[in-house]
Amino acid sequence: MSYRLHNFFRSSTSTRLRAALNLKQLPYEYIGYSLRDGETRTPEFLAKNPQGLVPVLETEDGAMLSQSLAIIEWLDETHPVPPLLPSDPNGRARVRALSYMIACEIHPLNNLRVLFDIRDRFGADEAAQKDWFCKWVKATFDPLEEMLAASDQTGQYCHGDTPGLADICLYAQVWNNQRFAIATDDWPEISRIFAELDVLPAFSLAAPKNQPDAV
Amino acid sequence: MSYRLHNFFRSSTSTRLRAALNLKQLPYEYIGYSLRDGETRTPEFLAKNPQGLVPVLETEDGAMLSQSLAIIEWLDETHPVPPLLPSDPNGRARVRALSYMIACEIHPLNNLRVLFDIRDRFGADEAAQKDWFCKWVKATFDPLEEMLAASDQTGQYCHGDTPGLADICLYAQVWNNQRFAIATDDWPEISRIFAELDVLPAFSLAAPKNQPDAV
Repeated sequence: MSYRLHNFFRSSTSTRLRAALNLKQLPYEYIGYSLRDGETRTPEFLAKNPQGLVPVLETEDGAMLSQSLAIIEWLDETHPVPPLLPSDPNGRARVRALSYMIACEIHPLNNLRVLFDIRDRFGADEAAQKDWFCKWVKATFDPLEEMLAASDQTGQYCHGDTPGLADICLYAQVWNNQRFAIATDDWPEISRIFAELDVLPAFSLAAPKNQPDAV
Repeated sequence: MSYRLHNFFRSSTSTRLRAALNLKQLPYEYIGYSLRDGETRTPEFLAKNPQGLVPVLETEDGAMLSQSLAIIEWLDETHPVPPLLPSDPNGRARVRALSYMIACEIHPLNNLRVLFDIRDRFGADEAAQKDWFCKWVKATFDPLEEMLAASDQTGQYCHGDTPGLADICLYAQVWNNQRFAIATDDWPEISRIFAELDVLPAFSLAAPKNQPDAV
């Protein structure tokens, strides 16, 4: 077993990394942490990642890689087949832009530590948290839908007919939306791509519900 | 003039892209938009980027590239000298992780549309906005400082003695912190690297205060 994946079943960034490892057909040891119980804030975990965030990929030589998208780029560079990014710079820019729309505009606002913060800071109850969460999903899914539907570069998946980095981010975000039962009906192209991905074992086996620590 | 940069002087992501273009010694036409006045929400701008966000880099062939980090990776692939990422995968993973700590954990929570949202949604006044802003800076700058100070890969800049992607993100974020006059004294290594960068014309000329639309 070469890799150890320090992660949390429901974490969207962990889902991304599980899907990438599966697409690369790289086996890994699953090590689950409960974010709600603060298991990533222990001295032992902070020695692995001073940010106290999952996922962390522990490599064969003991290196601790953090930040899901940095790890996925590393995986793509060290295990190039199958590629998670197109070979042409313009295609790569498109796929990275679609990915960062989700990774830099939705997820950072909607993760657990931010939901806890607006609860504690502003008294946001469950309904107010849902309203906040939905706002940031919609603010990005609306233009993402438009960009996917309008481009002839969109294929079976976000970019052509090979699943890649943008699909990984999209798949994990649609699962994350389940926290507040957000249906994807308003975004038919996103829904279609999610359905295409969900029949691929590399993706479905990465879904939160299919992890050993899922509750 | 090959490139047109659609941007906003105070936008942190715009600062990143200006620094990258300067490091690559690529001239560009500066086109400023006021975010406060909604100039990126017009039909004309939304045709360039359906997300309604700056920066957008318009290339010689009329392509509109969005998402600052996607554009910077594109610049690094199409104009490889000087490189903005190290040549080894582990070094690249480190630089990307340091970059994404800022780009995915601080900036998305602290940009203008989120500050407006917590004002309108939760009634956060200027002091409450500052408290929110500072929390997310500190949550990432504390571990970032630790990681920079602890690693022998840190050199004159974030990674060795060549300024790159992580420096671009760090420099833009320290400027962004000026919105609430956050001093960097608590983070000596971050402060040292910022000072090293600020004497380089590629960086100082990218700073918000040095833009034609600065107020």
